[in-house]
Amino acid sequence: MSDQQLVRPVPISGFPEWTPEVRVVELHWLDTIRRTFESYGFCSVETPSVEALDVLMAKGETSQEVYTLRRLQADGDDTGDGRLGLHFDLTVPTARYVAQHFNELVFPFKRYQIQRVWRGERPQAGRFREFTQCDIDVINVDQVPLHFDAELPRIVHEILTGLDLPAWTININNRKVLQGFYEAQGITDPVGVIRIADKLDKIGYAGVERAFADELGLDKDQITACLDLAQIRGTDSSVVDAIDQLGGRSELLTEGLDELGFVLDSMSDLPSGSVLADLSVARGLDYYTGTVYECKFTDAPDYGSICAGGRYENLAGSYIRRNLPGIGISIGLTRIFAKLVADGQITTGASCPSDVLVVVPSDERRQSAVRTAAILRGRGLNTELYHQADKIGKQLRYAARKGIPYVWFPPFDEGGEHEVKDLANGTQTSADPHSWQRAAG
Amino acid sequence: MSDQQLVRPVPISGFPEWTPEVRVVELHWLDTIRRTFESYGFCSVETPSVEALDVLMAKGETSQEVYTLRRLQADGDDTGDGRLGLHFDLTVPTARYVAQHFNELVFPFKRYQIQRVWRGERPQAGRFREFTQCDIDVINVDQVPLHFDAELPRIVHEILTGLDLPAWTININNRKVLQGFYEAQGITDPVGVIRIADKLDKIGYAGVERAFADELGLDKDQITACLDLAQIRGTDSSVVDAIDQLGGRSELLTEGLDELGFVLDSMSDLPSGSVLADLSVARGLDYYTGTVYECKFTDAPDYGSICAGGRYENLAGSYIRRNLPGIGISIGLTRIFAKLVADGQITTGASCPSDVLVVVPSDERRQSAVRTAAILRGRGLNTELYHQADKIGKQLRYAARKGIPYVWFPPFDEGGEHEVKDLANGTQTSADPHSWQRAAG
Repeated sequence: MSDQQLVRPVPISGFPEWTPEVRVVELHWLDTIRRTFESYGFCSVETPSVEALDVLMAKGETSQEVYTLRRLQADGDDTGDGRLGLHFDLTVPTARYVAQHFNELVFPFKRYQIQRVWRGERPQAGRFREFTQCDIDVINVDQVPLHFDAELPRIVHEILTGLDLPAWTININNRKVLQGFYEAQGITDPVGVIRIADKLDKIGYAGVERAFADELGLDKDQITACLDLAQIRGTDSSVVDAIDQLGGRSELLTEGLDELGFVLDSMSDLPSGSVLADLSVARGLDYYTGTVYECKFTDAPDYGSICAGGRYENLAGSYIRRNLPGIGISIGLTRIFAKLVADGQITTGASCPSDVLVVVPSDERRQSAVRTAAILRGRGLNTELYHQADKIGKQLRYAARKGIPYVWFPPFDEGGEHEVKDLANGTQTSADPHSWQRAAG
Repeated sequence: MSDQQLVRPVPISGFPEWTPEVRVVELHWLDTIRRTFESYGFCSVETPSVEALDVLMAKGETSQEVYTLRRLQADGDDTGDGRLGLHFDLTVPTARYVAQHFNELVFPFKRYQIQRVWRGERPQAGRFREFTQCDIDVINVDQVPLHFDAELPRIVHEILTGLDLPAWTININNRKVLQGFYEAQGITDPVGVIRIADKLDKIGYAGVERAFADELGLDKDQITACLDLAQIRGTDSSVVDAIDQLGGRSELLTEGLDELGFVLDSMSDLPSGSVLADLSVARGLDYYTGTVYECKFTDAPDYGSICAGGRYENLAGSYIRRNLPGIGISIGLTRIFAKLVADGQITTGASCPSDVLVVVPSDERRQSAVRTAAILRGRGLNTELYHQADKIGKQLRYAARKGIPYVWFPPFDEGGEHEVKDLANGTQTSADPHSWQRAAG
């Protein structure tokens, strides 16, 4: 042991790290997300962690804090790494990727991207400086089929159903409905209405009503119509009828209602309550142009969005002179996962992926144990071989501490009898490594 | 289309990025590596991309160029992000992780870590500034069982066998054998011998001989013995006999030969030529203390190591006063993969994970297509539903361009007949979505 001064390792605020048993659950989340994305045929894309600063800033100064890179031993001859910044989302890299590889991609380009992103936030509780986003997008030349407006929330629905989560709802709206409806009411600043209506959660109906009058000069009928619209909720296309009954007609409104109706009809087979048309959902409307999504925990709105997204125009306009609209949803994995961990809402179990521990009762039986482990592994079972001949009690405790569900006793000789112990109930039975199945569930 | 100035996206030297069809192959590599690691029960660990600089530098100034982070809009009140650096390998983070979570881990701690690392290199062809490493290590308190010296190369063997690679060999040596043998020859600076012998590839036998005499003052017998040792190769424990015959005895040599023999005996069932004891393999010997590994392409030594590793002492000595030796192997995924891509050695196929494309011949058959796709997906087949009713020819071309192997024709009505076309041979047959199997291979 050296006498040198120790460097005491401490967690770095905003950079989450998990112990193995929590990581097992996070991996299950990541696997569920990836598997579902792929089951719909979306391809994987990864981009470098960095982009050139002019790419990151192509739309003007971003509101996100960007981390730039600097070589520790940078000298006068520094070759410009300071012009590289860690990406702060996956949208900018995707836009750049599609522009750069335009001629190599098949459109509609259906991709998912699961990667870490970084934001140069001041250290602060609950603020992540490194976190994983899981994005799925469809980008096409000139026009994206409405098919995807319905497919993306179905994919998210399938993912969330596969995770062990508190109750959640996918809220759907359509920006054309909002904008078309406001225009039909003779309102000249529909974006202003949307901006104010988006504060409903914070300032309530009275506050919104006041802002409509004071800030936008809306009259009483207009205010009533806007508030009536924002209160409409529904799980099927009956919401279209409800909006119709508020009156007002415009081409944009008709288009939006057709789209919203199509999406809701397409999802009518999903369990009741999991998808909800919510005409109060607005979401950053400088960006979105049609269908918008926002998914939240039903009973914990303070968690913020589990995921969000929608339709947008001209993704890569800063990099290429092609019209490339898209639609996408982003799952904020780390933010949600870390909060559930902190709140004790994540159930952990094993700290390793092993299905079986094969014990080594003595050096004489080691070869028999080696062979048994190889047979089980060959059948797709994750199998640990205990690392030395030792007392059985010690090996059983090792399995129990790691949460390995089965302990296997290899035979004394080649033709002998195998036994397997189920640690959940303590039963030990004879078994054939070539055909043994673990208990269901 | 806006008139703004375009930012032309260009590749950034040292930060690799793949098109979707290359990414499919990279994902297959990553999945093979992970699945094999897990089949032996190793758990997943991920650490933040950054470490505190004092953690990165705990062993003194590193020879690696480190990237530090700097907030783009950093002001006078900067809260010290400049003291954070991106990790340059996975060994330092693992040492810090084990020290920090010491009381939460089960030992021997068997973990794998697959993550990107960064090095602040000057831009230069073939130099990666961001790349993915795949590390597997076992860390234990005080002593690591010899079992793992044999298990780790077997895991690597299984991984490499599962990839479509040019011929490779896993070379194995043992530092105790080298050091013990040199000591038995009366050589006072065994590390010096190892340092020079390690240059055999570069300066040849004559150069090594000269350096032994000039730099270390070895006599003729000592030089002959050292060169004889370095020439020993063998696929089984007969190498132990060959070393024995060179003469010389020391406790360390005996210990090393026992260990080397155990490892080679344990791997005797593997295909001939894939594992080779090579007494010329040295590897950074300030670090390694026993078994060492180095895997290279048999016919392309200029590729450098596919993977390398070995036994080391006291991993986390900079952070905790516990003796924590370990053994590990690191696969340099990006370096090898990128070079194979550049050399046209990677066979690409599909650009997406889809097994089947379900076509939508008309809007009337869309519901039938939706139901069919759901059935196939439910059976674990990655299934794309074409995004709109369109000419069949166009949908077939879409499948062919993406490399989707099967195109499915849903029936006109619920009880009608399904057909599936195999794009590899053009045959189209009737099929039941509930039971259809894709052709083997």
